[in-house]
Amino acid sequence: MHLFYIDNLDSDLVELPKEESVHCTRVLRLAAGEEIHLTDGCGQMCRASIVNAYSKACLVRIEERQHEYQKRNYRMHVAVAPTKNTARMEWFLEKAVEVGIDELTPIICQHSERNFIKTERLEKIAVSAMKQSLKAYKPIINEPTKLSDFLKLNTAGQKFIAHCEGDERNPLKDVCQAQMPTTILIGPEGDFSKTEIEEAFAAGYKAITLGTSRLRTETAALASCFFVNFINE
Amino acid sequence: MHLFYIDNLDSDLVELPKEESVHCTRVLRLAAGEEIHLTDGCGQMCRASIVNAYSKACLVRIEERQHEYQKRNYRMHVAVAPTKNTARMEWFLEKAVEVGIDELTPIICQHSERNFIKTERLEKIAVSAMKQSLKAYKPIINEPTKLSDFLKLNTAGQKFIAHCEGDERNPLKDVCQAQMPTTILIGPEGDFSKTEIEEAFAAGYKAITLGTSRLRTETAALASCFFVNFINE
Repeated sequence: MHLFYIDNLDSDLVELPKEESVHCTRVLRLAAGEEIHLTDGCGQMCRASIVNAYSKACLVRIEERQHEYQKRNYRMHVAVAPTKNTARMEWFLEKAVEVGIDELTPIICQHSERNFIKTERLEKIAVSAMKQSLKAYKPIINEPTKLSDFLKLNTAGQKFIAHCEGDERNPLKDVCQAQMPTTILIGPEGDFSKTEIEEAFAAGYKAITLGTSRLRTETAALASCFFVNFINE
Repeated sequence: MHLFYIDNLDSDLVELPKEESVHCTRVLRLAAGEEIHLTDGCGQMCRASIVNAYSKACLVRIEERQHEYQKRNYRMHVAVAPTKNTARMEWFLEKAVEVGIDELTPIICQHSERNFIKTERLEKIAVSAMKQSLKAYKPIINEPTKLSDFLKLNTAGQKFIAHCEGDERNPLKDVCQAQMPTTILIGPEGDFSKTEIEEAFAAGYKAITLGTSRLRTETAALASCFFVNFINE
């Protein structure tokens, strides 16, 4: 099964974007009449056939549409401090898309070692992981946001902060409910500051642990996706 | 806390291996009298102080020993087909050490795209991840083994095979028991062959799924570590 991404699937006759066309016709060498699949990253999964295998503007006809393809019964938003090494953030996102993530916000914290991350690159990784794992939902990637601003957002559902110190934390599995919108905050290498933790509490976030092991930022972020997925399976 | 690895901690006065000495004295610039920690990768965690900060043979005195440091209540053995791209196998191991793994066997399957992997390199990654995540257990890394030979081993505990097709599979969370030695087989990009699956059943392995998502080999291997850890927390 070959899956291609195209953001607008309104028409039944669509032209693949240039990059996707090149991949379809030159790399995979698919020809007119062959079957491919298309997704808009918003839940649509379409079976389609190639009408004209133009290498830069491949034309395809949609034969069958499925809406809300493999829609999950929960919504997962991870707000994570970008890691010093961006490759670690990128693999987190790749894996998170495989497992299940709906929204990613890079948060800038007091102890952040990195205050900037290219969201276009994260966007590309999300598309590529979605195609590779045959999914029809692409997560929303937000621009880097200061934690204090992020906490002001009126986020629905259950909200958790995975910080590393203190006794007032519960294991995620004891407090996380299934089928709920869930937001989890993951701090930078140097953890959240005390002030930040207090601010998060004031904004309705509950302190959690992701197990007894000390996890790197990106491992903790991925662990939270695995755990919430596990609870909802 | 600075943790160093040294395979023999019998004596109370030990010399760090050359690489660890260089790291301790030149990179971290630690001096005589300063406190470090040592592990043998077999459960010992020792507090020690530097006696002589020789750059190639740093001498340290053990002040306090803890045995079975943060010992987990289960044993996890992952037997996984090496991925075509070895970097993916390496990051799996790094994360698995953070989360919890006791033994790793690269298995060679009928559909394997890679039949060889350098275990010395995996060994180095395991040591580095153990130190970084402040653990006292280093997993056993076995040499690559043919699946048919691996299945002949008299493995204790519960045994699972995570293959991708068929209806006779149960979610891992429904069949996996806590506090048990656990072995999980993860196949190559092209999945296990039908013959291999039959052979595994005959050897007492039960078919499992790791959720509804299609996961890459290395993501599935890591998912199994997260899930078994989660069940045992």
